[in-house]
Amino acid sequence: MSAPRFGRITAGPAAPAGGEALSELLAGGGARVVRIASRGQVDPEGAWYDQAEDEFVLLLRGAARLGFADGTERSLAPGDWAVIPAHCRHRVAWTDPAGETLWFAVHLPPA
Amino acid sequence: MSAPRFGRITAGPAAPAGGEALSELLAGGGARVVRIASRGQVDPEGAWYDQAEDEFVLLLRGAARLGFADGTERSLAPGDWAVIPAHCRHRVAWTDPAGETLWFAVHLPPA
Repeated sequence: MSAPRFGRITAGPAAPAGGEALSELLAGGGARVVRIASRGQVDPEGAWYDQAEDEFVLLLRGAARLGFADGTERSLAPGDWAVIPAHCRHRVAWTDPAGETLWFAVHLPPA
Repeated sequence: MSAPRFGRITAGPAAPAGGEALSELLAGGGARVVRIASRGQVDPEGAWYDQAEDEFVLLLRGAARLGFADGTERSLAPGDWAVIPAHCRHRVAWTDPAGETLWFAVHLPPA
């Protein structure tokens, strides 16, 4: 039996200006739990993530906007979550450049 | 291609006094992402969860205490997370009876 591990989500790698810092909190069976800190990070226009797996994201702090291939965008505030199904093309359209945005993401096993 | 879904983690089933309310936000490939609202919910002494899968929990609001079979306890405040490995026996030793405690839990696929 392994021992439990503990941490604080606000403690972790800081985002570089214009970029992001990812850290994996738990992984197994094809699933991953990831902490993401962003500061002004934006994916290039037309550069879509097209993932084999469903993803769940929860915005914990800061502000962000997700863009989708159908042209819609969605703003996220702290407490907002999104489920992005496999092959739903998306990108990070904006994250606040003035402060750190903290995300919590879960990648499910590929279908 | 499925469409994305959105929600707010603070919006969801309210915890009954002395109990909890669970809602599944996403599941697939043996993994589950769950929102849990508790209000004074406590697992009976000696009643251990002994799970086949690793679990990640993040406390978003409120206050709680986890107990482990080795006799240790750990208090959780908002922003605190815990990884509970498979077969690490644990219980909820206390949740604040005066207000709602909001958890976010991820169950990984069984090993």
